[in-house]
Order: sequence, then structure tokens, then C-alpha cells
Amino acid sequence: MKEKILELLENKKFNELKQILVEENIQDIAILFEELNKEQIILVYRLIPKDMAAEVFTYLEPEYQEKLINMLSDEEIKNVVNNIYIDDMVDLIEEMPSNVVKRVLKNVKQEQRKIINEFLNYPSDSAGSMMTIEFVDLKENMTVEQAFQKIKKIGLNKETIYTCYVLDMSRKLIGLVSVRDLLLAEKDDSIKEIMETNIITVNTLDDKEEVVKKFEKYDFIALPVVDKEERLVGIITIDDAIDVLQEETTEDFEKMAAMIPSEETYFRTGAFTHAKNRIIWLLVLMLSAAITGEIITYYESAFATLPLLVAFIPMIMGTGGNCGSQASTLIIRGLAMDEIRLKDFWRALFKELKVSIIVGLVLFLINGIRIVVQYNDFKLAIVTGLALIATVILAKLLGCILPMVAKKIKLDPAIMAAPLITTIVDTCSVLVYFSIAVVIMGI
Amino acid sequence: MKEKILELLENKKFNELKQILVEENIQDIAILFEELNKEQIILVYRLIPKDMAAEVFTYLEPEYQEKLINMLSDEEIKNVVNNIYIDDMVDLIEEMPSNVVKRVLKNVKQEQRKIINEFLNYPSDSAGSMMTIEFVDLKENMTVEQAFQKIKKIGLNKETIYTCYVLDMSRKLIGLVSVRDLLLAEKDDSIKEIMETNIITVNTLDDKEEVVKKFEKYDFIALPVVDKEERLVGIITIDDAIDVLQEETTEDFEKMAAMIPSEETYFRTGAFTHAKNRIIWLLVLMLSAAITGEIITYYESAFATLPLLVAFIPMIMGTGGNCGSQASTLIIRGLAMDEIRLKDFWRALFKELKVSIIVGLVLFLINGIRIVVQYNDFKLAIVTGLALIATVILAKLLGCILPMVAKKIKLDPAIMAAPLITTIVDTCSVLVYFSIAVVIMGI
Repeated sequence: MKEKILELLENKKFNELKQILVEENIQDIAILFEELNKEQIILVYRLIPKDMAAEVFTYLEPEYQEKLINMLSDEEIKNVVNNIYIDDMVDLIEEMPSNVVKRVLKNVKQEQRKIINEFLNYPSDSAGSMMTIEFVDLKENMTVEQAFQKIKKIGLNKETIYTCYVLDMSRKLIGLVSVRDLLLAEKDDSIKEIMETNIITVNTLDDKEEVVKKFEKYDFIALPVVDKEERLVGIITIDDAIDVLQEETTEDFEKMAAMIPSEETYFRTGAFTHAKNRIIWLLVLMLSAAITGEIITYYESAFATLPLLVAFIPMIMGTGGNCGSQASTLIIRGLAMDEIRLKDFWRALFKELKVSIIVGLVLFLINGIRIVVQYNDFKLAIVTGLALIATVILAKLLGCILPMVAKKIKLDPAIMAAPLITTIVDTCSVLVYFSIAVVIMGI
Repeated sequence: MKEKILELLENKKFNELKQILVEENIQDIAILFEELNKEQIILVYRLIPKDMAAEVFTYLEPEYQEKLINMLSDEEIKNVVNNIYIDDMVDLIEEMPSNVVKRVLKNVKQEQRKIINEFLNYPSDSAGSMMTIEFVDLKENMTVEQAFQKIKKIGLNKETIYTCYVLDMSRKLIGLVSVRDLLLAEKDDSIKEIMETNIITVNTLDDKEEVVKKFEKYDFIALPVVDKEERLVGIITIDDAIDVLQEETTEDFEKMAAMIPSEETYFRTGAFTHAKNRIIWLLVLMLSAAITGEIITYYESAFATLPLLVAFIPMIMGTGGNCGSQASTLIIRGLAMDEIRLKDFWRALFKELKVSIIVGLVLFLINGIRIVVQYNDFKLAIVTGLALIATVILAKLLGCILPMVAKKIKLDPAIMAAPLITTIVDTCSVLVYFSIAVVIMGI
């Protein structure tokens, strides 16, 4: 359809274009914007029916939202801000530069502005910042029929209506009713009879990660958010939970590659911010590598006697790094997925020990064959082989221990990943390698 | 509640325990099983009401499912297999060892066995293998009221009822109606009037990853699966899509750490399988490191003259590895999230170039200061510093280029991650380092 739309745009067949846009998915229209230039963007946006336009707007990438706001009239901005959900509104304000935010807020009603301010006060990693305030609330003395009437009345403006929340007089959450339960009940059943009272909730200040875990565990479509007094203040819907899940995973990837996680996408992060996020760990690891350098200097006489020894440093260090990376990745991911728990410490350690012995022996063998063939030097094969085995075992055990220790002392296991472990293993493996060489070769 | 249940179990207060279990979430009961011994498992399972028991069963970890099946009577197994959804059934058969599968299939009805066999024929990474056949189908000439009656009649056994599928006589999917649309419509409206005809579907043979991307893009709760003739054969629900999303992410983590992805969780994978998954890349990378070794051997006379040169090899190699890991992680993740596309190649490359120049200069400076302070050797500071800059730029550019090239030639970008890039960068950086040293130091 993309080609079709671009063609109609080219030939100024706007009526036909309008017809097509009405039929399209809002998400597909939003993606289409990435193909358009500035003039085309505003043109297409104005061809979309008003009630779709606000929704399309929420699916645009921030850079296109910004472009668009700068071109829209105040009247058009009002249409957007009065028709999008509060959580999308808050996202918008957090993403946009201040001059754009000013234009947006100017067109927001007084009472809405108050709500927005409340939302902006929730910590950015809290459940409160994820929630929306649009939901269906019922009273326990309502009948099923009354419930349906209420849903019909307010249903259109709700992000999800499939779970209704039963509140008491002080807005405390006392029960849940799914639309499914309502459909299967009799018209004059009371809500009290059919509501579910064993409710899973999250608190406004709970960590986002907690929220995502609850969605994964309980297979909900929406999750109620309560304040300290257990009053219902909002709900979180599954689509937002998936977005957060993806963000958290991206953060883990970044931490595991020795970076400070970025708030923005790759291209929206400037080169200086990228550099800043990456430089700290690089400096720490670079300076730590000096220790390995010191050890090598200490064994100067050894490789002065046998310079060939130096040639195997990259292989031993590289293998150690890769082994550490393998083990730590599995453990970190396992911890994140709750497949590995702290009580499994010894079980995991024992497993890594077994794996590292198998892997170490295979590497010993293949490396030995290569060295004997290439250099016809049995002693060298033994020295490098033993260093390999020691390095593999050390790397895998550290890759297992460090993330679990981090979790135990409430640090993020993801920082105990390949880069840090590699640096530690580098130091140890060089030490082991030269010690073995000195003993076996008698140098 | 865990403590409470264990205590009641201890004191054999089974009636009280039964009361508590009825009130609990099935997912919480399933997790409880991990704390129980064999006798307790079967005891608790038998205290759960029959209609909950089958559902609890589907949420158990495979090892507890296996234990349980071995203890259950045929009658109890029948209760499970006749009350779980087809997708859970297929998962069960794929996870269990053959003797357990035999006992399960023995208790399955003839017609159900046929369906199971069809499902087992879908490739394990296809949409077909994810779907369930429980859904609500309507005809377009039904009224809204008739639709509600149909939902009421078959609603109880459906995994999701919130989207109903409108089929024509040949079971072709011609429309969608959400329960929300039904609720907001008039009783005697016809389905044809209110149904959505712009339908997003997946094909039974589509890749799971495609399915997950559609869920992310369109915020669906369920997605219809059609066969080649566009007949509706099943639906995929959002909870299963999240599970697949997590599995795919785990696979990416494993590939990026130079492992062949495991089908099973960490502990359910044996030590030999773990070793097998890890050894291939380790061998490839170990043997590749021999090239770096050759280069070092070539420069033997250089470090024979100035042994201190060797001490900086770990630092330069380590920094290169970390820089490559940072860049490739961001690019691979960006590609997976569709935040970076192939057409962004030059834009990404230019960004990495800028970042690497900034990072390189900072490292040059800090490293220079350290070397001058420690060794009072300006030439050494320049040589190592230039080698660092060259390594950083090379590592970041390769970290950007290789994953994108992989994507272009339809390989998984995740294999172009830290381990492979580190090995390539090692070779280049050692070469650059010694070349610079020879020229500047005149050795």
C-alpha cells in the first residue's frame, strides 16, 4: 500500500488517498510517515479523519511527532492532546524539547494539566509512570446489566474495557470483573456475587521490572495500580508492558557490553552522549589491563629466552574472554528470567565446572595437535594446553559466580558480564600461563 | 502464603489447605510445587479442585510435569489432557521424554490425537506451532445478540473471547469483531455492519519472529492464523507471543556470546550439550587467534629490542574488544528492534566514526598521562596511544558494518557480535601497534 499512497500523493489524488487512509491500520499509517518529506507529512496528516489523527499521532516516532507539532495549528494540537491517553501524553512531554512542550501544554485544559503534573512526578522507572487513568470502575451493588450500561457509556474512551474494577466508597479496589465473567453471568446477578476478590495489584512506586514480571507470570491483559492507601489510581495495559520489557532487555544488552544504558534510541542519542555512555567502562577496563601488563613485564626474562611464548598470549586471553562471556551470559539471562535463582548457586557452579572441564579438554587436544604439527614442540603444547584448561575453568566459574554475587548484594547482575570478566580472566590467565611455562620449560 | 501452605501440609490440615488453594492464583500454586517433595506434590495436586488442576498443570515447569504424570492415575491424566488447550498439549508432548508421552497419548481421545499430530507437523519456529484452535467464530449474517449467545455458549472453553472471527461458508476469514464493538453496538445490528474487514493475519508457516513483531506493532490481544487458502485455522494469544519474544531474546543473547542456542532452560540442558553448544565457536576463535600469534612472531625482533612493548598488548586488545562489543551490541539490538534499518547504513557508520574519534582521543590522553608518569617515555605514550585510536576506530566500524552486512545477506546479525569482532580486531590491532612502534621507535 506504501507505493500506492506515494503515487496518489505524487499525482495529487487527495480524495482517493483519503479513502485509502480511512481503511488503513493506524500503525501502518504511522510507519508511512517515515517515507514522507515535511510537506507530505502535514498533507497526509490533514487527510486522516480527525478521530484517527490523534491515535496515529501517538504511534509516530518522536522525531516525526516533533516535526508535526511544529507544523500544526493550535486547533489541531488541541485535537491531539484532548484525544490521546494520559500515558501517551506523558511520554510525549518527556520526549519533546522544551519549546515543543510549551506549545503542547498551552493547548491542554487546566484540569488535564494537573493530572499530567502528577504523572510527571512519578519516578521514571515506576509503575506510576507506565499507567493510564482510563478504566471502567463499578460498584459492588450494581447488577450485571448496569455494569454493561456503564461500559457502553464510558467504553469508547477507555484503553481497555475487558477488566472492570470494583471500588468501594473510598475508591479502594475490592474486586475485579472481566467482561467475560459479565457475559457469562445472568443479567440480574450482582457484581458482588461474580467479582474476583483475589486481586493482584502493583503500587505506583513499584519498579517497572516488577510490573513486567507480573504480566509474564499471570498472563493479564491489564494490571491495576493502587496507591499507598490501596485506592485504585490507574491501570497498566499489556502493550505498554511489552514496550517496557523490550526497553529493559535493551538496557541489559547495553550493560552487558560495558555501556551506561541510553534513554533514547540509537539515532536519537548524540555522538557525545554515546561517547560518554561508553567511555567510563573503557577507561576502567583499560587501566585494569595495566595489571596484566605488569605481570607480563615481570616475566620478561621468560619470553626473552623463548619469544614464541608471547605469540600464544592472544589465544589464551581470547579463549578466556569467550568462555567467560558464554557462562556469564547464560547466568545473567537465567537470573533475569527467574530460571536460575540464588539458591541454585552450587548447582550452577557445579554445572559450569563440568562444562569447563569438557571444553577445556577438547581445546587442550586440538591446540596440542596444532602446536605439535606446526612447531614439533611437545613441551609448548603441554604448557599452552594446561594454561588453556586453567583459563577455561577460571573464566566459566567467574562467569557463574560474579553475576550471582552481584544479585545477592542487590547489584544488577548484567554489569558482571563479558567485559569485566574478560579483564579479570586476562590477568589471571597470563599469570597462570607464565607460571606453568617457567616450571615446565625450566626458564 | 507459601509458609502457610507448607505449615498446613506439615500438620496434615488438609481441609484447611484445600480452602486456601481454591482461593489462590493458579500461577502461584504452580510455583509452590517447586518447594515440595514428591509425596507433597501429588498430595497438593489432589487437593486442588478438578477444574483448576488441569490449568495448574499447564503452568508447571516441565520437570514437575514429568514427575506428576509418573504419579497420576490414568483417570487423572485424562482430566488433564481433556481440559488443557491444544497449544499447551503440543508443548507438553514436545517437552516430555517418550515414555511419558506414551502415557499421555494413551489417555487422549482419537479425534484429539489427530489434531495433535497435525500440530506436531508444523515447523517448531512457525506460527502454526504457537497457535491454539479455541476461538469464537461467527457468521456475517448473525445479529449482535446472536453473537453474544454464541459467545455465552462456547465462551467457557476459549482461551480468548475478546476477538471474534467472522468466517464465510468455506471458513475463509472475512472479518473481525471485538467484544468491545459488540457491546457498543445495538442488539439487532448485523455482524456484517460492524465487523472490521481490514484484517492482519499470519500464515501457519510464517516465522515466529514475524508473529511477535506483528503483536508489538499492532498491540493486539490475539492474532488470527490462516492457511494457504486463507481459511482460519487458529489464533495466537498475546501471552504466548510474550513467551516467544523472551525465547527469541535469549537466543540472541546466546548467539552474541558465541554459543549455539539451547532449546531448553539452563538446568535442563546437560553438561555435554552445554559443552557442545559452546565448543564450536571457541575452537574457531582459538584457531583464528593463531593468526594474531603469527603477527607477534613476525615482530619478534621488535620486542626483543624493547620487551616493554609486549606489556601493552593486553590493554590494546582488551580495549578493541570492548569497543567492538559496544558498537555491535547497539547495532544488533537496533536491527532487532527495527530502530536501525539497512538504509541507515551510512548514517550509523558515520555516527560510530564520530563516537570512536571522541572515545579514541580520550583514551589516548589518559593512557598517555599514565605512561609518561609511570615510564617517563613520550615515544611509548605516542605509540600506544596511536594504536589505541586506530583500534577503537576499527573496532567500532567493524562492530557497525559486520552485523549490517550479515542482515543484508540474510544471516542473523547476532552472530557478528563481540567474540568474532574481538578476534578480528585483535589481529588488526596487534599489526597496527607493532607497525607504528617499528616506525616511531626505529627498531
